[in-house]
Amino acid sequence: MNIQKFSVSDALLERSPGQEGDIFAGNVIDQRHGGPVTIGFGRYGPLQNLSETMTVHDTMVVLEGRLTVSTDAATVTAGPGEVIYMPQGEAVTIRSHEEGAVTAYVTYPHWQEARG
Amino acid sequence: MNIQKFSVSDALLERSPGQEGDIFAGNVIDQRHGGPVTIGFGRYGPLQNLSETMTVHDTMVVLEGRLTVSTDAATVTAGPGEVIYMPQGEAVTIRSHEEGAVTAYVTYPHWQEARG
Repeated sequence: MNIQKFSVSDALLERSPGQEGDIFAGNVIDQRHGGPVTIGFGRYGPLQNLSETMTVHDTMVVLEGRLTVSTDAATVTAGPGEVIYMPQGEAVTIRSHEEGAVTAYVTYPHWQEARG
Repeated sequence: MNIQKFSVSDALLERSPGQEGDIFAGNVIDQRHGGPVTIGFGRYGPLQNLSETMTVHDTMVVLEGRLTVSTDAATVTAGPGEVIYMPQGEAVTIRSHEEGAVTAYVTYPHWQEARG
């Protein structure tokens, strides 16, 4: 594969599996392309809430808005240009604020395969 | 490891190995932390130029400014909020523009180990 460039508009944003809120994700690189990581974009509506146990190592870059991620042991909030790292195995709650959020993410391994 | 949040100010930016230009990189997560990916931030001065053959799969998110990446087969330019994926094995030239650039990156595997 050659180098590639992506914007959020290149991602087909779909509701994240297993949740009913206004949280959407779309991969631009994943298991279909033969590499080791999945790359994608996410969009969170205002005041949304998503709890999950991480099946992959997920690096999330906040592009717009703010997100707060909590575990039993820690709470962090990131705004534009900041990064939140969520290691495999952590039980996290991701919460958006009034302004919603847009993210880019990189997961290892591929999250759609890890979910089964 | 628990969840963690990082800003560019958390990275100790050092001149990239093997080059003399105004290009600096600093890991915030890497082989020292036991996970599979390296996460870091980069800073490019104006009109810099870096050529290398990728030893890892590198996902670069442009946070400020613009970067142009070229191979024999393709040239892409990304601005804030856009992502450039550089697969392992590609020979790339990364070029900054007048305004320089700030990036976040995720590599698999760890780039410092892959370089040897």
